[in-house]
Order: sequence, then C-alpha cells, then structure tokens
Amino acid sequence: MYDIGIIGSGPAALSAAVNARQRNKSVCIFGRSLDSSLLFAAEKVDNYLGMPDLSGEEMLNQFYAHAVKRGVEFKESRISQIMSMGDYFVINAENEFYEAKTLILAIGLNKSRGIAGEMDYLGKGVSYCATCDGMLYRGKRVVVVGENEEGEAEANFLADICESVSYLPLYQPVMNLKEKVTLLQGSPKAVLGEGIRVTGVEVNGEAISCDGIFFAKNSTPPESLLFGLKTEGKNIVVDRSMATNLPGVYAAGDCTGAPYQIAKAVGEGLVAALSAAAYIDAKK
Amino acid sequence: MYDIGIIGSGPAALSAAVNARQRNKSVCIFGRSLDSSLLFAAEKVDNYLGMPDLSGEEMLNQFYAHAVKRGVEFKESRISQIMSMGDYFVINAENEFYEAKTLILAIGLNKSRGIAGEMDYLGKGVSYCATCDGMLYRGKRVVVVGENEEGEAEANFLADICESVSYLPLYQPVMNLKEKVTLLQGSPKAVLGEGIRVTGVEVNGEAISCDGIFFAKNSTPPESLLFGLKTEGKNIVVDRSMATNLPGVYAAGDCTGAPYQIAKAVGEGLVAALSAAAYIDAKK
Repeated sequence: MYDIGIIGSGPAALSAAVNARQRNKSVCIFGRSLDSSLLFAAEKVDNYLGMPDLSGEEMLNQFYAHAVKRGVEFKESRISQIMSMGDYFVINAENEFYEAKTLILAIGLNKSRGIAGEMDYLGKGVSYCATCDGMLYRGKRVVVVGENEEGEAEANFLADICESVSYLPLYQPVMNLKEKVTLLQGSPKAVLGEGIRVTGVEVNGEAISCDGIFFAKNSTPPESLLFGLKTEGKNIVVDRSMATNLPGVYAAGDCTGAPYQIAKAVGEGLVAALSAAAYIDAKK
Repeated sequence: MYDIGIIGSGPAALSAAVNARQRNKSVCIFGRSLDSSLLFAAEKVDNYLGMPDLSGEEMLNQFYAHAVKRGVEFKESRISQIMSMGDYFVINAENEFYEAKTLILAIGLNKSRGIAGEMDYLGKGVSYCATCDGMLYRGKRVVVVGENEEGEAEANFLADICESVSYLPLYQPVMNLKEKVTLLQGSPKAVLGEGIRVTGVEVNGEAISCDGIFFAKNSTPPESLLFGLKTEGKNIVVDRSMATNLPGVYAAGDCTGAPYQIAKAVGEGLVAALSAAAYIDAKK
C-alpha cells in the first residue's frame, strides 16, 4: 500500500512526488513514458524560474532525475480506472492492481473531445475499460473505438466474452485483431441511445446497432477515471489546497485548468503533495 | 508608467517578472535586497523540481540571474504605501513615486504580529507611513514605533510637523534622532483609543497619551499598504487567477497563505503575471 499514488508523469506529477518523498511518504507514479508529455516536444522553454533556455526534453530529464534521486517509484502504464475502497484506493494499471491511501491526479489536459452523447451514456453502455466492464456485456454486441493500438487488445479481450465485437480504429495501421473482430472504417459522430441504454453508434452518417461502446483513449476523461469526481468543463474542480470533492483525492497541473504552464503545474504538485501528506497524518 | 509593478523580491516576485517579460510587458520589481528573503538564509533546499541540492542563496542567485537576463528592472526600496488612481497605481518607494497599470503583491509572509487595537484604529490614528499621513498630525502629539532604523527617519520627519514626537525603538542601537524627539524604552502592548480616535499607546503598563501612532515595520501589513485590499487573517484573499478583490491587483507567494514553499510561490507568480497581462490586454 503506497501512501500516495500519483496518476500522470508530467511536471505536476514529478513535483508532487519529490515533495511527498520530502515528507517521508511512500509514493508511486503511474503514468505513460516521459515522451508522452506535451512538454517533451517543446523546442525551448524559458519561463520556469531558475532554469532558462532549455528544451522541453532537457527540462523533463532534469525533473525526472530529481525524482529518481529522491526514491520515487515509477510504473509505466496507462490508467483507465481507479476504485475507491472507502479509506483507500485501488489503481488498475493495465490489469495490475495497486493500492494507495491517497491519490494525486496529474493527468494533464484532456484532449479527447468526446462525441455527442458520450458523457450522457457513461455507465449506461459507454465504458473506457474493457477489463473493468467487459463481463457486463457477455453475449452482447459491442463496438470498440480505439485512439491507439491498445484498443486492439481491448477488442480482442471482448471478443472472448461478447456475441460480436466491431473495431473502429482512429489511427493506422491496425496490427493485431482476432478473426472474430469486425473492422469498421470512418469516424464516430454520436453515441445513440434510448432512455437509459445505448442502442448504437453513428459512424459516417450510418447507425451501427450495439449494446455497448468501449473507448480506448490516449487519456481517460477524469470523471470516468474515478467515480463521482467533480469536473467543470474539462477541468477537475479543486480548492486552494488542491483537494477535489472526494476525500483523499487531490489534483494538480493542466487537469485543473489554465494556464497550461510548468510553474503552475510544479506549484500545484507541491501543494497537492503537502495536502495529501497532511491528510494521511491526520488519520493516524 | 510600467505595465506591471511587482512589490517584493522573492521567488514569487521573480517568477511573475520573468513571465510578464515573456508576455512583452514592461515590469519593475520594487523590493528589499535579495538577502532579505527568508529563502536566502536556507541552508539547503531540495524540493523545487529540477534544481536539487542548492543552498537558498544559490537558488535565489539563479532566480535573479534569470530575471535580469529577461530585462526585468529593479528598484531596491521598502514600499510603505500604494495609491489607487482609478485605472493605474502610484507606488511610493521611499518618497520616489512610480506609476504602474497593474500590481502584483508578492510581499511575503507578514511576520509583524501587530499589537492589540492596532488594526482597529488603522486610519483613525494608526499609520505606517509618515510621508503619507504626517500632515494630518500638524501641531499634534505622535509616537513612532520603529522595528528598524528607518523609523528614525520617520520620527525626524514628523519632528518638523508635530507638536511632540516620541520614539520607541524595537532594535539597538538608535543612531540618528533629532533633539526634539523624545526617546522611549520598552515594548508597546496596545493602541489605546476612545470611539473612533487614538488616545495613546500602552508601553510597559503605562499609558502614553498621543494623537497618532506611526509604525515603521520591516513589512507593512497588506491592508495598510493598499486601501481596501481584502485580507483574511494574515493572508491576502485571492481567487484561482490570483486576483485580489481590487481590479488590476494580483497577489502571489507567501502573502496568499500556506504552504510557504518556493514551488507554490513560483507557480502563483506565473499565474498572477498572466492574469495581469490579460487584464492589460483586455483594456486596450
């Protein structure tokens, strides 16, 4: 059981981790590789005080080195679901499960725009995690929309459970689909439904009938990552201590809103870590 | 006229300045020398992401070098009063006056505790600035309480205006008082008053009668620095954009509350600068 589980691997996550270690908390970063950070691609960054004239990659490497030096653990993985267990959390890291007393969400800017109806039918036929929800669709018809090749693994997993699986890739090339999976082409426009259940998905003007739709996204929308998390538009709602509406859950960095800048992320990561540490200490 | 006047010279102020320059705003830092920052005395700082294992002095020097490199101006002075002129501000820097379209208050932790009654009689006989308010006490009796040798200059200035001036130093030695000024000894316990006016000050159990009390402090309480500024306890009240209750006035760093940490200050300085820049651009 970690004291603090940090979701994300950008500046906010790394700052939170360094500061959690300084408070003697055990901490693990769950996130994608460093080069997935928007900062990695930045040609030059000049507004993080004290470190002028670096490339984004150089800066991230210095950030990472600082965290490694302080004993931060890293599990490179895409996190699609976290479950609250009352007074701790279970983090599903590509089907390996880890426990943490508190969470810091530093999941970056949610670039997935979502399609019409997607949020309306969340939990009513729309899912972001085949492992979590696949069994609910035993013997039923599902469509998997994949933003990356992890969608293929999701579709293949569902193929063993569901009556039919259609796969709609939003990237090229598709490499590794089971024979049972039907390949679709085009782009999804809307989740279709009647009352409280999904009935299909609209692709290129055509309604494709199904009982469930799985989205394999580059970043999971925060409100589906953790049930009950309060958001406003694309942002996780936080107070000045970086606390979300859920006890023991904090957020930092781009996912809490503009400005999308390193110094803000680093500052919020610090504050979130101190708040999480104080939360743990108060429960002792 | 500067676009942005920054009050303070610590990490929040320097981060605000670097980011204001990046938005092409003219900016001047008004503050005491770098070695007045609490950070300067820190033996080792290890929780500002990317810059491990530095002394406070080394870190401040790197921060300062970054700001200088970006064309930030500096005026080393103690700021005791700022006046709002409607759509710009006048900054009184030891009796030199500068104008700015917007303000960022990065004045650090207010360590002056204040004595009983001090805040109750602010503007009703209690003042922090002899130059600003001295003429109101022409022919009257005043007491000056000095935390540092600048109090002597305040007392000497008032000696030319007031009927009597008593000086109560909270430091040693007192070097340069005019003959007309009476030297007191002890420590002030309470501001005394009747109704809406000061009547005296209690020193070592004794009531010393006077019409006005001037405090020359190491740091001016924010609510007396700028009229109408909203505070809560010792903190300046800000929203997530670091805006205070006064249009065009932002705050950042320790003066907005705990945690008193570099990363928080640097992050808030960035946010305050972007908010001030946006405020200026919106008025064009």
